[in-house]
Amino acid sequence: MEPIKYLLPDDAIPTAWYNLQADFPEPLPPVLNPGTGQPIGPDDLAPLFADALIGQEVSTERWIEIPDEIRQILAQWRCTPLFRARRLEKALDTPAKIYFKWEGASPCGSHKPNTAVVQAYYNKMQGVKRISTETGAGQWGSSMGMACQFFDLECLVYMVRVSYDQKPYRRALMEAYGATCVSSPSQDTEAGRKILQDDPDCRGSLGIAISEAVEVAAKDEDTKYCLGRVLNHVLLHQTVIGQEAEKQLEMAGDYPDIIIGCTGGGSNFAGIAFPFIGKKLRDGGDLRVVAVEPSACPSLTKGPLRYDFGDTAHLTPLVKMNTLGSTFVPPGFHSGGLRYHGMAPMVSHALKLGLCEATAYNQLESFAAGVQFAKAEGIIPAPEANHAIVGTIHEAQKCRESGEAKTILVNLSGHGHFDMQAYIDYHAGLLRDYEYPEEDIAMALAGLPSFGNE
Amino acid sequence: MEPIKYLLPDDAIPTAWYNLQADFPEPLPPVLNPGTGQPIGPDDLAPLFADALIGQEVSTERWIEIPDEIRQILAQWRCTPLFRARRLEKALDTPAKIYFKWEGASPCGSHKPNTAVVQAYYNKMQGVKRISTETGAGQWGSSMGMACQFFDLECLVYMVRVSYDQKPYRRALMEAYGATCVSSPSQDTEAGRKILQDDPDCRGSLGIAISEAVEVAAKDEDTKYCLGRVLNHVLLHQTVIGQEAEKQLEMAGDYPDIIIGCTGGGSNFAGIAFPFIGKKLRDGGDLRVVAVEPSACPSLTKGPLRYDFGDTAHLTPLVKMNTLGSTFVPPGFHSGGLRYHGMAPMVSHALKLGLCEATAYNQLESFAAGVQFAKAEGIIPAPEANHAIVGTIHEAQKCRESGEAKTILVNLSGHGHFDMQAYIDYHAGLLRDYEYPEEDIAMALAGLPSFGNE
Repeated sequence: MEPIKYLLPDDAIPTAWYNLQADFPEPLPPVLNPGTGQPIGPDDLAPLFADALIGQEVSTERWIEIPDEIRQILAQWRCTPLFRARRLEKALDTPAKIYFKWEGASPCGSHKPNTAVVQAYYNKMQGVKRISTETGAGQWGSSMGMACQFFDLECLVYMVRVSYDQKPYRRALMEAYGATCVSSPSQDTEAGRKILQDDPDCRGSLGIAISEAVEVAAKDEDTKYCLGRVLNHVLLHQTVIGQEAEKQLEMAGDYPDIIIGCTGGGSNFAGIAFPFIGKKLRDGGDLRVVAVEPSACPSLTKGPLRYDFGDTAHLTPLVKMNTLGSTFVPPGFHSGGLRYHGMAPMVSHALKLGLCEATAYNQLESFAAGVQFAKAEGIIPAPEANHAIVGTIHEAQKCRESGEAKTILVNLSGHGHFDMQAYIDYHAGLLRDYEYPEEDIAMALAGLPSFGNE
Repeated sequence: MEPIKYLLPDDAIPTAWYNLQADFPEPLPPVLNPGTGQPIGPDDLAPLFADALIGQEVSTERWIEIPDEIRQILAQWRCTPLFRARRLEKALDTPAKIYFKWEGASPCGSHKPNTAVVQAYYNKMQGVKRISTETGAGQWGSSMGMACQFFDLECLVYMVRVSYDQKPYRRALMEAYGATCVSSPSQDTEAGRKILQDDPDCRGSLGIAISEAVEVAAKDEDTKYCLGRVLNHVLLHQTVIGQEAEKQLEMAGDYPDIIIGCTGGGSNFAGIAFPFIGKKLRDGGDLRVVAVEPSACPSLTKGPLRYDFGDTAHLTPLVKMNTLGSTFVPPGFHSGGLRYHGMAPMVSHALKLGLCEATAYNQLESFAAGVQFAKAEGIIPAPEANHAIVGTIHEAQKCRESGEAKTILVNLSGHGHFDMQAYIDYHAGLLRDYEYPEEDIAMALAGLPSFGNE
């Protein structure tokens, strides 16, 4: 028998998160106060986030210990399996060895619970009663809902309206976990009311939903805000993925030549890639790391590296990131998790330093790749993950041409069970490729704040 | 850390299927020709089934070797994890130890691929070009679709109309695997046309869909029929579940006092229970085995043990089973996989011999149990599996009362990602408990064939 899966026992769950900030050859630019243009301190973030998470956000320690209570909760689904995609390799007739890390094995079906349970834990320890957050396609909202249920916290989720209407099943999952789910923009908040006044039919965006969730947390001392993407501590929590993958590849007697992940906010990509990038920075090596994003929302490949707000209503501090402009509302393509105007500062910084590269694919070629993957491997991926797959297939095809037996490690960040309408539309020929929305992006970029961007 | 998951490597996939027929204290009653009332032989089944599968259907060998090609394919998802449901135990405040075998880890989300890939394999070996089959909720159809894709066979699925209309996402999954899905009753077949003539609005049933799929196979020599339930060889293929669970419990230092599974056609129940029942028959012991079925379709608890047809149009041979009558169309409750008029002959025989017991729960208490499970463990179960969970919670509560720390092993046969409408309806208070449909069943039973039932 040829081995397909590489499995690790519960007690192999990593005991520390890996922090790439410790190994960056130059430090991450500071986060700025949008009113003064001065670097902010932990105190400025305290109304929104639990203290321990703020500590992790600014830490430059290389390893941050994972409390045993969190490892115990992670064991509900971790370590996730590493698969060798032998059937896909055969279908592609490639000498490349393709390994995928299967984050869809979590109860919510994606990598998102890896950080949701951590954030719920630290908030619970601090006596917080309620978590407010936002969700796009619903993967984060359901993960946060489950995490809050595990730690007996209330959970309030602002869900981007277009997803709220199109994805009742994700909503049902959140509600099964006991979360409250509100369509965003809503009448609950000043930010929501203002947007609805200007545009009652507004389909919503992640940036808007973040504004609502942040506002609620800022105004209620028993409520704190949680974010499932972009922030340093979120990326930190995801590094269990890459650490596990390294051990699993060791079982297989392999080490990656190329690591591939899809990027929306950057967290699943960072989760698999950062431990390997850190190792390369410390020990050297030939690793290539490729971020794959949608052509219709190309923050890494087309967005400049600038200071920008994380949300639409400009309630957040300014962070330096590749951005399409905080007022940019991406077209309605079928990868809700990748529809965000900015990229994680740490991923943006890694790109700038040449520690990774970025590429973009449109949705039709992504879905074609996802269907090819499903036919070969059985698993039907989330539309977001299809971007990682099309990137992988592209690299495997290059190996076929060159005859090189490279080892490719890809993060399969989630399953598509709650996204089947997208597959129906794809098969019915209803999907189209969106043009790069040049004008909208130019307009949104024209509105960038001046601080930090002089 | 308290261990949550017990994992086995790929090469621990069982090397043989276990056949309870070898250990039954009295033999299974023969299958009868409905025209003559005489036992049928393998030749009678040859137009419908691959020869190797017919051989397994009638075999009384204890162990039947699993070809390496099949073990290699099973490795795409097996061995499935065994979980200790520690969080559920705590929520129930029970001294019982609850272990669940997680069959939802397969790419199609249930135990069904365990036999689908085997049936596809043997048909492919025999030169068959196309498989016809039926599906209720869609779990079997998607599994057969994937299996046919793996072995390069065409796949034609007759899907019960009410599910076809209500579950477009299951259909989309089948189509992603390249299967063709037809709403049943259809105009494709004589059986379908006859039923539509009498009742153009017929919502369909598994019995009807089976008639259509069987008819297509009988009339086309390149097509054979596959069934995902009830038959001896189907139950045989599922015994990998129980064999793995036995090894995994050994890792945990435990052995079950009680085994629980939900029963529709009986295959997931048999899969987990039969290897343990066989061991008890050979070596003795105190094991209790509990089959849990829906009150609205109570073949085991209310249906007599009689010879009956497997389908509505009476194209199949007669098998001896607990049956509600082959013309009984169950009410439209939300567990499509449990809406079948009969029970597997081997499960029926085991019940008659006292090797297992049977109990029934209605859908409201099943959903309540499923939601409680999701809140504790994260995983949202299929409505079918909720029946196994309500039975488990009931036993765990008995342990709380008696103070006994019994070991309960339950088969969690699938996830509910494609059944979220049922959870929406449940939370909205739209589900109701169906009365035991006494009159309909009496009428259906009045039509039982006379052969074998004298």
